[in-house]
Amino acid sequence: MRTGIATVCLSGTLKEKMQACAIAGFDGIEIFEQDLVTSPHSPEEVRKMAADLGLGLDLYQPFRDFDGVTPELLKANLKRAEAKFNLMERLGMDTILVCSNVATATIDDDELRASQLAELAELAGDHGVEVAYEALAWGKYVNDYEHAYRLVEMVDHPNLGTCLDSFHILSRDWDTAPIEQINAEKIFFVQVADAPKLSMDVLSWSRHYRVFPGEGQFELAKFMGHVVRAGYTGPVSLEVFNDVFRQSDTERTAVDAMRSLIWLEEQSAKWLASTAVETGTETAAGNGSASRRRYPMELATLPKVNEPAGFNFAEVKADDTAQLEKLLGQLGFEFEGRHRTKDVQLWTMGQARVIINEQAASHSEPAIAALGFDVDSPVIASARAQQLKAPVVARKVQADEEVFQGISAPDSTEIFLCQGSPDGTAAWTHEFGEGLEHSAAQRNAVIDHVNLAQPWQHFDEAVLFYTSALALEPQPFAEVPSPSGLVRSQVMETSNGAVRLVLNLAPAQQSQETARKTYQEHIAFAVDDLVATARSARDRGLEFLQIPANYYEDLDARFDLQPDFLATLMELNLLYDRDANGEFLHFYTATVGSVFFEMVERRGNYDGYGAPNAPVRHAVQYDSLHRV
Amino acid sequence: MRTGIATVCLSGTLKEKMQACAIAGFDGIEIFEQDLVTSPHSPEEVRKMAADLGLGLDLYQPFRDFDGVTPELLKANLKRAEAKFNLMERLGMDTILVCSNVATATIDDDELRASQLAELAELAGDHGVEVAYEALAWGKYVNDYEHAYRLVEMVDHPNLGTCLDSFHILSRDWDTAPIEQINAEKIFFVQVADAPKLSMDVLSWSRHYRVFPGEGQFELAKFMGHVVRAGYTGPVSLEVFNDVFRQSDTERTAVDAMRSLIWLEEQSAKWLASTAVETGTETAAGNGSASRRRYPMELATLPKVNEPAGFNFAEVKADDTAQLEKLLGQLGFEFEGRHRTKDVQLWTMGQARVIINEQAASHSEPAIAALGFDVDSPVIASARAQQLKAPVVARKVQADEEVFQGISAPDSTEIFLCQGSPDGTAAWTHEFGEGLEHSAAQRNAVIDHVNLAQPWQHFDEAVLFYTSALALEPQPFAEVPSPSGLVRSQVMETSNGAVRLVLNLAPAQQSQETARKTYQEHIAFAVDDLVATARSARDRGLEFLQIPANYYEDLDARFDLQPDFLATLMELNLLYDRDANGEFLHFYTATVGSVFFEMVERRGNYDGYGAPNAPVRHAVQYDSLHRV
Repeated sequence: MRTGIATVCLSGTLKEKMQACAIAGFDGIEIFEQDLVTSPHSPEEVRKMAADLGLGLDLYQPFRDFDGVTPELLKANLKRAEAKFNLMERLGMDTILVCSNVATATIDDDELRASQLAELAELAGDHGVEVAYEALAWGKYVNDYEHAYRLVEMVDHPNLGTCLDSFHILSRDWDTAPIEQINAEKIFFVQVADAPKLSMDVLSWSRHYRVFPGEGQFELAKFMGHVVRAGYTGPVSLEVFNDVFRQSDTERTAVDAMRSLIWLEEQSAKWLASTAVETGTETAAGNGSASRRRYPMELATLPKVNEPAGFNFAEVKADDTAQLEKLLGQLGFEFEGRHRTKDVQLWTMGQARVIINEQAASHSEPAIAALGFDVDSPVIASARAQQLKAPVVARKVQADEEVFQGISAPDSTEIFLCQGSPDGTAAWTHEFGEGLEHSAAQRNAVIDHVNLAQPWQHFDEAVLFYTSALALEPQPFAEVPSPSGLVRSQVMETSNGAVRLVLNLAPAQQSQETARKTYQEHIAFAVDDLVATARSARDRGLEFLQIPANYYEDLDARFDLQPDFLATLMELNLLYDRDANGEFLHFYTATVGSVFFEMVERRGNYDGYGAPNAPVRHAVQYDSLHRV
Repeated sequence: MRTGIATVCLSGTLKEKMQACAIAGFDGIEIFEQDLVTSPHSPEEVRKMAADLGLGLDLYQPFRDFDGVTPELLKANLKRAEAKFNLMERLGMDTILVCSNVATATIDDDELRASQLAELAELAGDHGVEVAYEALAWGKYVNDYEHAYRLVEMVDHPNLGTCLDSFHILSRDWDTAPIEQINAEKIFFVQVADAPKLSMDVLSWSRHYRVFPGEGQFELAKFMGHVVRAGYTGPVSLEVFNDVFRQSDTERTAVDAMRSLIWLEEQSAKWLASTAVETGTETAAGNGSASRRRYPMELATLPKVNEPAGFNFAEVKADDTAQLEKLLGQLGFEFEGRHRTKDVQLWTMGQARVIINEQAASHSEPAIAALGFDVDSPVIASARAQQLKAPVVARKVQADEEVFQGISAPDSTEIFLCQGSPDGTAAWTHEFGEGLEHSAAQRNAVIDHVNLAQPWQHFDEAVLFYTSALALEPQPFAEVPSPSGLVRSQVMETSNGAVRLVLNLAPAQQSQETARKTYQEHIAFAVDDLVATARSARDRGLEFLQIPANYYEDLDARFDLQPDFLATLMELNLLYDRDANGEFLHFYTATVGSVFFEMVERRGNYDGYGAPNAPVRHAVQYDSLHRV
């Protein structure tokens, strides 16, 4: 598949954008007119830059408000078009995007529109330019891709085809199946964008909230599947207007964009395979025989992975690790010793393993540093992640030590892909000191979930990262009030809940460091008997997060609890939630640095995270942070 | 008017919120339940804090999902309600907000709803509580205030009344005139919120985008006018869910909130006066005779001001002022000398006066420091601003020097209220050195507009500040693409365009300093002959902002300009715009520190700011900033 991206997706100057696209590995770009108009580089210089960078200049866009106008306006529009065709010749470009008229159309008549588009196509032909006509979702008279295609068919000119844009089609809920009936010769360009499902006017939605494929809720694999079946073999190019992407790091956003296309290729191939029996694959073969483009539409494949089977470990680091050791000990974790060759400690409770890394920079406060996931094959999972452009992190290893495959998540947390085992043990633990005799308590403890604060610039990127590289599924997001603002909370999990990751987007657009400090991160462990765990921890002197008495009054008003149960909750600072599936008990420790711990007990099939209790946690943590 | 505010409007803990409300001068507050539930303070402590702060506890809210339910659920709901009534007794509160059912209503039957509300009212009566029933805009069956009131009438219980919330009424475009027909005895509470007109689902709109009165587009004065005519004399309380307010400084937001109510009082009185002839004022007198509340509904008045007649001066400051002096000299400004007693210089061109302040902190770069506005009476204008809680700034003055009335704008720019004169001169200029002999050129120059970068936390506050204190009118906002993101641009101006202020909201949520550096501020001067001005400036060696050649090609494609005119534009780095009213020519200087200058010529009745050219300016400025 030939990959492309519109320059409007990225921040920076045209030159910076082009360089970032080349570094990210795109085949070509769409030049968004304003980026050229505001550039100090002449069209000839832009052409040379693109050639030097190995970037195709695949689409000039947009040309607006052409069709359905009065004869006087048509004349002016053709003159305007000719100036752009001349410019395209200097750029060495051959395809222009013409959007259906929004502002100046006054005549709703397909015959007239077709005749005007025919004039445009004829003029374009004189300049060696091909016109890709697209129905905008908010076009005044033409806002449906099938309508745009009917016009293209009516005109029947070699220099006029259509452009399919997933946003304009899926935002209007148009049926995508008829795409397969379009003559592939007449699909001159395909643009893709994803979006969260928002109920707002489609223009604002389009201009501010588009995201890269895999970061929203559109059925893009299906859309692309129909496009492929139609026989289309041209560029598939991202056109994503997003307020955050427009202001975040250019190169990094370009890589995020490229990742989304690689992932979309795989998902599209999967969709095609899964629907092959139903609909047959003859259409593609039939239509695709005489493609106008030279790029064969081969959908690249990626190394296949299943969703992770569980957390292998979590790693926290600090300059001074005493507080972490104390907390884990009070929670009931056992110290398993130091690593043979590295300055790290292993602490365990059942199958919950926590590494305390003592190699942190001096004066750095306790923080979550890394997460290990159990996968079928670390090498295959790592290969997949790297093909998805995840940055690699290396760990120094000695002979006969397990080699960890590591990648860096968008928030810089290190993600290690580990060999899982059926019994939940980890082979690498033998690299640590003598195994101790363990008490029988909490043998079944596991890491239940991990909660990470995300920098605002990389929130969507993080969702795609965990979706594509780790096969976690994003759940509908929630918003949690805190004294510092609303916290957006995005759960990513496996279908069986064995891995649960919660990404929190802090309200203020702060530095990652401030975000981590204010919206603390935590590791939650699940045990069988939370009350017993809490009592033992209290006996060991654990500092619990203090839950206000008002909370318990409200809890009682909501759930009508047994008095002795309520008293136990209050006594131990436990929080409680209940839904149709089951019950949830949990407590939090005080925070050290930017990290705290949570212990949870899931009763029945409770599948949530105690969301109604999150505001209480935020308020108490805020209070203790500001009281210091 | 008794003023109030819901604690959910503000950031921080319940205690911090209450303190901020007292400082801002509110009469009472609404306790948002979650703020109490998450507070470490007992109901008794909260009651005492409120009493100590002189704050009434006017409304406990919200109680959700009560009416239209099955008998089993009714029983549970009554139990839940009783717990809250008990809590209110401990708080010493007598009014609770009950919203129409969203989630659990299954029976759409007014008789049933009325009987259930009657049970609630009876229970409330036993606890000395009054229930204010409100129709949520998205209530499942009850979403119209007239419907809610019909239910109140059906129940006819002394402990059941209604709550009118401007958001729930105006977001649905309900007619507000029938409010006057409501028995004032039955209006137990009034909540006000403004909002920008957005086309999105009403729940998201309500939860994230409400603003304080005067910061949005609702007809709140009319709403309040009808409420007053109905005879209502109870609290008028802000309930504003806003993502930004929830995370910005608590005290400052509370002051902004209070300002909005003071302004609303004045606007409501104006609306009542302007419609008195039409509808008579008998309704209010008739209904208001036996009010259940003790607070008389007197709408406070403010000192009256007209819109400013023009800019009196603009002031820039720097540690090293050499660059500023050079730029102004090159633009054609004349140095009028130093002030008798202060380290400031005066530069003028016609009636455009620029003060260069040399008293800046060491190493501070050139920046806009202050703006002077011509008003009818500086003392009255200052009194008004201070009653609107604008912070006062003082200037040291010697005997026989003009005393400037100064206030501080939300972005810290100092605003001076100056005595205007019919001929546009300023008396204080005699405090500067010898008047020089001036050339006849550009006698008509004036300050055309000033463009200020606003910190994201105080953008809405700034709109209300300039609206209420300076009588500027907000225009519909625009969004301008820049290489660093979309810039939101809000024009505030007088009806005749004599004062034009452009507030720019930088995309990234950065510090004010970074925002100023990236999204530079400027002062624009209007002259009669821009081409001549530009030529003279060029001859004096002015460094123009360099406009790319691509811009002129696009300009030609858009406007089909005369070749020699286009050549002149290119030669002098002039920008151009045209609309149905006239033409606009302008150029920019290079930036020094965070400030640059613009020279403009308005031809015909052109009333804009060359918005299509703004992306070019941003791109070139970005480029020069990043090349350094």
